[in-house]
Amino acid sequence: MIDELSALRKIEEKFHTVSKGVEVGIGDDAAAVKITPGGLLLVTTDSQVEGVHFTKTLISADTLARKSVAVSVSDIGAMGGVPRYILASVGFSGDEDEDYLSQMINGFRESEKEFGVELIGGNLSSSAKLFLDITSLGEVEPENVVKRTGASEGDLIYVSGTLGDSALGLTLLQEGVVRDESKKLIERHMYPRPRLELGRQLAVRRAANSMIDVSDGLLLDLGRITVDKGLGARIYADKLPLSGGYKSIVSDYTECFYELALSGGEDYELLFTTAQDNKDYVSEIASSVGTDITEIGIVNTAPAIEIIDSNGDEIKLNRRGFTHFNN
Amino acid sequence: MIDELSALRKIEEKFHTVSKGVEVGIGDDAAAVKITPGGLLLVTTDSQVEGVHFTKTLISADTLARKSVAVSVSDIGAMGGVPRYILASVGFSGDEDEDYLSQMINGFRESEKEFGVELIGGNLSSSAKLFLDITSLGEVEPENVVKRTGASEGDLIYVSGTLGDSALGLTLLQEGVVRDESKKLIERHMYPRPRLELGRQLAVRRAANSMIDVSDGLLLDLGRITVDKGLGARIYADKLPLSGGYKSIVSDYTECFYELALSGGEDYELLFTTAQDNKDYVSEIASSVGTDITEIGIVNTAPAIEIIDSNGDEIKLNRRGFTHFNN
Repeated sequence: MIDELSALRKIEEKFHTVSKGVEVGIGDDAAAVKITPGGLLLVTTDSQVEGVHFTKTLISADTLARKSVAVSVSDIGAMGGVPRYILASVGFSGDEDEDYLSQMINGFRESEKEFGVELIGGNLSSSAKLFLDITSLGEVEPENVVKRTGASEGDLIYVSGTLGDSALGLTLLQEGVVRDESKKLIERHMYPRPRLELGRQLAVRRAANSMIDVSDGLLLDLGRITVDKGLGARIYADKLPLSGGYKSIVSDYTECFYELALSGGEDYELLFTTAQDNKDYVSEIASSVGTDITEIGIVNTAPAIEIIDSNGDEIKLNRRGFTHFNN
Repeated sequence: MIDELSALRKIEEKFHTVSKGVEVGIGDDAAAVKITPGGLLLVTTDSQVEGVHFTKTLISADTLARKSVAVSVSDIGAMGGVPRYILASVGFSGDEDEDYLSQMINGFRESEKEFGVELIGGNLSSSAKLFLDITSLGEVEPENVVKRTGASEGDLIYVSGTLGDSALGLTLLQEGVVRDESKKLIERHMYPRPRLELGRQLAVRRAANSMIDVSDGLLLDLGRITVDKGLGARIYADKLPLSGGYKSIVSDYTECFYELALSGGEDYELLFTTAQDNKDYVSEIASSVGTDITEIGIVNTAPAIEIIDSNGDEIKLNRRGFTHFNN
């Protein structure tokens, strides 16, 4: 059992923030920070709930803390911004002990370094099930912000990295089956790598006209930048970027080879659109930050998403996305 | 059962933000807002968890939503700031229906008007028990921010409004006993009124050298601006501001007449310190905003809080504060 006051003391000790942007850090009614004059403040919040987003026996406290931050700052990157600060609101179930808290603190400290953020506040509560709700604050120049709105007919659709690994990794993790391919896929699920640098460069160099991170599955998130905006998209299934691990074992788990790449969640890759004559430009930007990107389709005006296989036939899926809600 | 996507659509529809400070509102990866150049950004987060902070059968969804915002913006006021934006991260338990969601949305809309904020983002999830985690963003000029640090020996201690009503109201609510005095006390628990205007004026007019809102009980919160900063305090029990309802019935519920005023939680009054020669000044400020304030004691150097009764004897309490954690 963790005592609130001693936990707060421990946290205040570890996160005694000293950067010059922070006027008031943890330990007051609210944090007070400086924001670059003329910049836009970006803010987003995401929660990880035990039994819904994670199983406590399958993830350590530090990995969980890091993942909850990764997932949240990913949204800042998808706007073209730079993450700066985080707040952590944690509901402890009463099963956690001091060691668990220490590990969680370590996870937050690691993510501070990895993502260039500072933990400046939060809240502790008790709860039936453990939850972590992370608020991320970031900054972006007004002229560089990349929204979900902005695609036009004929634009090319790109995605970073590979798709479906996280969903497949989760399946492997839950089954407890150890295969040669398991490790990398499970790692994709446990340690999402938000594409902060790619998002930032695409924004600063005005290469993406719309962008989103793939958190609920490609189709659902693609719908948010196309169908929801009165547009449509055609996706070429054989162009979808798939990892070696995915290709070698996904057929053991799903009937449709592409299902998890199309609708599996938690990839945290960047999905963006760009004008047709930007092909070389976006390739060059992706190379410069060392992240692979793949052209997977084209924006059209049909208010739907069409997936085409290598024969030119349409693939129909029952499950069009992945959501933690109602799971 | 609430469906995430239709809930999101409903929320986006209702909170289609149009103010000129909001560049991107609900419905993108992150919200993007303008912050007054040179100002400090204030940010704080607070959660309300079913079974810990509230009982679903005792509070309606709109009152709950409003209260969760009130509690969060109270922290912005206690820094001397002006609340601007809120984000709501909600975990639905699955027991809530569309009506519940609509009521909750109404509660958020009411609090937008009441507290001058805009709901610009959030997150929906499922959860074993309903929770609301509210992040509030506010602004304050760097020279006006009032921290928990700043009191000195000899400073006077003031508190706004009356103390203990909320804790007594909660007792009445839980017992289901209806008395003449119940209504007002229960209302204090259900509809906390953050002292935003008082906090702001004390800050702008540099009248308070330290300030905090009383959320966990007077003694615990007073400790945060005195004992935690190497100081102490002497409180005169007979000076504590008590409502008529409190005075007439508290003895039916507690052995010590002052207990709930000293350690009952959720008052959301402002507790602040000021130099001795500021007596008239702070009275005038309180009058100008129409909020009662009461001088209740003095800051000293003893690293403890002493409560003195009308005979000059010390009152000892077992329970020194109120916390939702581990409850």
